[in-house]
Amino acid sequence: MPRKRVTIGDVAARAGVSKSAVSFVFNDRPGVSAAAKERILAAAADLGWQPSARARALSRSRTQAVGLVIRREPELLSTDPFFPQFMAGVEIGLTARDYSLVLHVVPDEKTERAAYERFARESRVDGVFLTDVRVGDSRPREIAALGLDLVVIAPEGADAGGDVVISMDDGAGVRRAVHHLHSLGHHRIAHVMGAPGYVHTEARRRAWQETLAELGLPIGPVVTADFTGAGGARATHELLDLPQPPSAILYGNDLMAIAGISAATDRGIRVPEDLSVVGFDDVPLAPYVVPPLTTVRQNVVSWGTAAAQTLVALVERKQAPTVQLPPVEFVVRGSTGPTRNRRPA
Amino acid sequence: MPRKRVTIGDVAARAGVSKSAVSFVFNDRPGVSAAAKERILAAAADLGWQPSARARALSRSRTQAVGLVIRREPELLSTDPFFPQFMAGVEIGLTARDYSLVLHVVPDEKTERAAYERFARESRVDGVFLTDVRVGDSRPREIAALGLDLVVIAPEGADAGGDVVISMDDGAGVRRAVHHLHSLGHHRIAHVMGAPGYVHTEARRRAWQETLAELGLPIGPVVTADFTGAGGARATHELLDLPQPPSAILYGNDLMAIAGISAATDRGIRVPEDLSVVGFDDVPLAPYVVPPLTTVRQNVVSWGTAAAQTLVALVERKQAPTVQLPPVEFVVRGSTGPTRNRRPA
Repeated sequence: MPRKRVTIGDVAARAGVSKSAVSFVFNDRPGVSAAAKERILAAAADLGWQPSARARALSRSRTQAVGLVIRREPELLSTDPFFPQFMAGVEIGLTARDYSLVLHVVPDEKTERAAYERFARESRVDGVFLTDVRVGDSRPREIAALGLDLVVIAPEGADAGGDVVISMDDGAGVRRAVHHLHSLGHHRIAHVMGAPGYVHTEARRRAWQETLAELGLPIGPVVTADFTGAGGARATHELLDLPQPPSAILYGNDLMAIAGISAATDRGIRVPEDLSVVGFDDVPLAPYVVPPLTTVRQNVVSWGTAAAQTLVALVERKQAPTVQLPPVEFVVRGSTGPTRNRRPA
Repeated sequence: MPRKRVTIGDVAARAGVSKSAVSFVFNDRPGVSAAAKERILAAAADLGWQPSARARALSRSRTQAVGLVIRREPELLSTDPFFPQFMAGVEIGLTARDYSLVLHVVPDEKTERAAYERFARESRVDGVFLTDVRVGDSRPREIAALGLDLVVIAPEGADAGGDVVISMDDGAGVRRAVHHLHSLGHHRIAHVMGAPGYVHTEARRRAWQETLAELGLPIGPVVTADFTGAGGARATHELLDLPQPPSAILYGNDLMAIAGISAATDRGIRVPEDLSVVGFDDVPLAPYVVPPLTTVRQNVVSWGTAAAQTLVALVERKQAPTVQLPPVEFVVRGSTGPTRNRRPA
């Protein structure tokens, strides 16, 4: 019986990383952590594997397509400005290289997994984007095991297990929001979190907490919600029912913040006179709610383009272009103002 | 020199319809107008063409993929609840038949045309969905000429030149809105149109005008805008500057309506006490603006599924399933109320 040939997939599996990461290491490219690089080199040595010309020849049978699987409730998909902007950005990066995007919008984990399996089994795409990364997410490993190249889009500092990551700096926006509220005299700043388990939900909560600590402010109350309007309204009532309600609330997204303004208004609490409100996303409606929403704006189109350029480079085993991503913006509008409960000087 | 074989494409080109329409006629299926059917039968007779077994054999080399090209500004894409819901619905229809969706988000007409050409040239998809149909749209003919199957998603009554259409009943929602405002005593009901040239923009305006006429109400002032918040705000100021401003405004979408509430509030005009406002779409934020928005809700997910089932049937030259689409809903919230300028009884 002939001995089975060792493949890049075997090395990736043994090192617990994606094939892309192995390829990156053997082409001396950045984007792989030192620890992962060590595991990869050890795995390749153990298995006696070397990158071959065959790998390059194989790439000639590329599909010229990459995939994106979006797992979202229809409500959250249609209010989240992330995906349309991300897809518009991806298009810019893909069209320049004559690639197509294959899209699946799925309702749950099972159908999401099936979509990746089908991508691989039917050779529909060469690589995929992974978004909405969860804490302890098993998908990067599963996707790598399917032999698909992978680019992960996640907040800075997320542990992606050696995969190539396009980092979004969620924390920078939150830090600016807390500083803004602090400068207006607020010292009781609450946070309404998005759906638990997502890396970006955690990144925003952590930045809120750390900035309060840096400023010497008490860590205000925090409520876990779910990024929906109903969840934002519920969380707002919960905070305003406290014996010592906050004078400002920082929400994990704009939809919850706008529902929060509505909930406060219903109780006769005026925004911003009695309560300052900050969102996250800068949805196109944000300037048109009453009062207009102070919020964090990220340049998602740029991330989409960078992610696409990086994924195409991975698929083609080329050097990924260096991409300069524009910084996050903080947009001050009418929903934040000086607190009337200023601490005695 | 051998005589070139006559193809279904030749028949379609001569009849000025899509290949799908020819196929429908020769398989005795509904969805093609009597006039188009006559042209198709005449063209086939002229050219001596008959559907062949070969056509069925050819279908075995299907790509198992269909395409959607979205041409939108990023702002309008991320506020329009149509596409996320439509894509979620398409997914339901495609997954059941093991098809994938190839998506392109393009900025302008030139890149849109290039996307269809590439679909055909590289055999990436078997058929496409066409949305955002314009008055006198040349795309159905161009797509048919490329040999792609086509399903058009357009308001009822749109002229699609013999192509298979999934009809959305935009008019029904507008009619209910006008009746609602009439029952509240309004007799000066204005309309803010979306971007001109789209079939759905025209369908909404026409339904507004016809319903006013049916009710014996004067045809109120109408302003052309562009579906954006800025456009909606501008149009609202224009209407409120009139010597006889309207007591109610019906907007072509929710984004313009919400910006309109904001513009009115800025002028000290109260909604709904001084001005009633109706939107169109029921975006997830609609219940959370102040006051909550009265609006029209369509079941776009169902249309997506119906469109996908129909396109797959076209591609496979099978009978399209009969789909019962749920009726449009009219959602009454706080932005509409009795007029204080009631006509003397």
